[in-house]
Amino acid sequence: MATHVSRRNFMGGVAATVGYLSTRPSAELWAQGGPAAVAAQRARGPMTPEMYDRMAKIASNENNWGPPESVMKAMNAAWKYVGRYGYPDGNIVEAIAEHHGVKPENVLLGAGSGEILDVVGTTYLLGGKKVLGCDPSYGSVYQHATAIKAEAIKVALKPDYTQNISQMIEMANRHAAEIGLFYLCNPNNPTGVAVPKQEVEAVVRNIPKDMPILIDEAYHHFVDDPNYEESIKYVLEGRPVVVARTFSKIAGLAAMRLGYAIAPAPIVAKMRPFSMGSINVLVKHGGVASLKDTQAQAEVKAKVKALRTKCSDDLRAHGYNVIPSQTNFFMVHLGGRQVQPVIEEFRTREILVGRPFPPMTDHLRVSIGTADEMDRFMKAFKEIFPKRERQTNAAGA
Amino acid sequence: MATHVSRRNFMGGVAATVGYLSTRPSAELWAQGGPAAVAAQRARGPMTPEMYDRMAKIASNENNWGPPESVMKAMNAAWKYVGRYGYPDGNIVEAIAEHHGVKPENVLLGAGSGEILDVVGTTYLLGGKKVLGCDPSYGSVYQHATAIKAEAIKVALKPDYTQNISQMIEMANRHAAEIGLFYLCNPNNPTGVAVPKQEVEAVVRNIPKDMPILIDEAYHHFVDDPNYEESIKYVLEGRPVVVARTFSKIAGLAAMRLGYAIAPAPIVAKMRPFSMGSINVLVKHGGVASLKDTQAQAEVKAKVKALRTKCSDDLRAHGYNVIPSQTNFFMVHLGGRQVQPVIEEFRTREILVGRPFPPMTDHLRVSIGTADEMDRFMKAFKEIFPKRERQTNAAGA
Repeated sequence: MATHVSRRNFMGGVAATVGYLSTRPSAELWAQGGPAAVAAQRARGPMTPEMYDRMAKIASNENNWGPPESVMKAMNAAWKYVGRYGYPDGNIVEAIAEHHGVKPENVLLGAGSGEILDVVGTTYLLGGKKVLGCDPSYGSVYQHATAIKAEAIKVALKPDYTQNISQMIEMANRHAAEIGLFYLCNPNNPTGVAVPKQEVEAVVRNIPKDMPILIDEAYHHFVDDPNYEESIKYVLEGRPVVVARTFSKIAGLAAMRLGYAIAPAPIVAKMRPFSMGSINVLVKHGGVASLKDTQAQAEVKAKVKALRTKCSDDLRAHGYNVIPSQTNFFMVHLGGRQVQPVIEEFRTREILVGRPFPPMTDHLRVSIGTADEMDRFMKAFKEIFPKRERQTNAAGA
Repeated sequence: MATHVSRRNFMGGVAATVGYLSTRPSAELWAQGGPAAVAAQRARGPMTPEMYDRMAKIASNENNWGPPESVMKAMNAAWKYVGRYGYPDGNIVEAIAEHHGVKPENVLLGAGSGEILDVVGTTYLLGGKKVLGCDPSYGSVYQHATAIKAEAIKVALKPDYTQNISQMIEMANRHAAEIGLFYLCNPNNPTGVAVPKQEVEAVVRNIPKDMPILIDEAYHHFVDDPNYEESIKYVLEGRPVVVARTFSKIAGLAAMRLGYAIAPAPIVAKMRPFSMGSINVLVKHGGVASLKDTQAQAEVKAKVKALRTKCSDDLRAHGYNVIPSQTNFFMVHLGGRQVQPVIEEFRTREILVGRPFPPMTDHLRVSIGTADEMDRFMKAFKEIFPKRERQTNAAGA
């Protein structure tokens, strides 16, 4: 049975762990953590809202501070349109276009960038074309490909957890006739590692000119690396590049569902029939306010960076290597342990951490939560894992 | 160029009229009222939020009283999850299943029933199958078919504006091999006329057994006719029936985007890959509260019926026939005038009325707004249209 896994579903490690996915196909639950996770969930029963509130939530790369007051205010002011179809929508499409220096016809709204990833997949993979990307990466694109009976060509990460761009380019050329879509998650999830701008350019210049490239920049706002660059310039060049963005990460609006694609106008027109174009009024107004509040985003970025640095340093000092991250999450190597039982151990301590990301099942993905949540995490980590000598292998293995 | 028109877009006569669709393809604007409408819109320029607020909004079959306090309260209580992916969602799927006496696997959520209609269309029409339905009907299904390069077989309404069910059944059998989907809008939009239960049963019993039937019951809650019946019993029978429902009409949540399909589990599984599964948290909680507040819905229904009856009587007394409606809108015959310039005349009086519904361009669709809005409408109607002898032809021609 084909299962659908949107970003919301797939990122919903929390939901899977706590039992809110009880009505979803078992294959999907399986994808969230394997039969062991399903069994553990069954054993503990569904989570109540009260239990959920008590949890430290560092599983799903959310913004645990939530949207700033400016955005909450804009959303609350839009309640008056609650029963309407056509209404003043804050000109969200125009606001996004202006933000990026593109035209409104280059913008496709989605209910989260999860919808954008699905729409791109449906547009370019229906009929049996393949998607090419790295492994592991954000699984949504691969899952949607499976759901619509398309396949994936996955290229393993290099030992240092960077994407093997040269091999991906080689595969794109070798299998050009079969490939419908080149998927580049930048920075990559679950590793938090960014692709340098030279390598993005190498992809654009060296794969077949007409091969669509989906560049997923969900975590773009957190990146500090001066060697990283956003990819909208390739859209302006007219390359078949679709850049996916979301208001679910730094903007803190995951549950409100807003994301978008920036792409050449003919590609937007091609994708539109598969998009629902069905965004709620509150987040349209919230999105406009969010684009304006650069100060709030800078504050979130600074908090995330400080907590990520501190937590990573603490883990390394405790003897466990961390993959250097450019995002609001990181991966820690578990010193030889497998991740699933570790997830359960955190769970009993009321801490929700990231699901397994095969084949990297000896790593745990940890999202950056509040200072209090990160303290709870470190305390639990030290209970679960003995102190070891500091590891010298930077890759964490 | 293929254009996508969801229920929100297509129903958005307001949006088209007032210029918020400025970034959408011109073909879509055209569908909203023809080149004359586009020209008129351009001439008057975009509508400001202040202008919008002043308008009597009886164009889009909305609930002009908005959701009741119970629903607003439930939505506001869910803000705490605004930044989350997985969260307690009020068990909306289970609540809908229980409401209808079906299982959770029979429920597919959509961002409005517009998403459901698109998903059903994509599921059953991709690859060139045709959709069969009446004409005029709610255009979203036909528009989506066009967008995905499928065609429609449309059967004209009978002279009394009822659906020609026997001819639709005949066409379904004659063209069975080409048809992917039988579309039944009940009650029909734009006429407001319901299909009697015997005729729905005739469709189910007399078309090819494996032909999927999409029964759009968006306006179900407004129907009084004892000869009308909801169609979920055919789902329970295991027929390939998809019933589409929405929280956008009587529940007053159009801008929050929530609808659903009730269908046999294998059909839900087949549709799921094309659905976004991406519903905002607030309306999930609002939907659960709405299902419970039957009192509020009964009040809206009573208000709508009283205002519809009064307005229809006044129009008939003024000499203009009205098609008897079972919904929160009705069509009035314009005594020989074409609708587009009439729409413009109402517009200059700050009244937004329904768009043209070819081929019924000698009728105007009027949604039931508040008592004040209906008074403004009647006053304007009497300014625009001279009093005539009461017409005896009940069909309004």
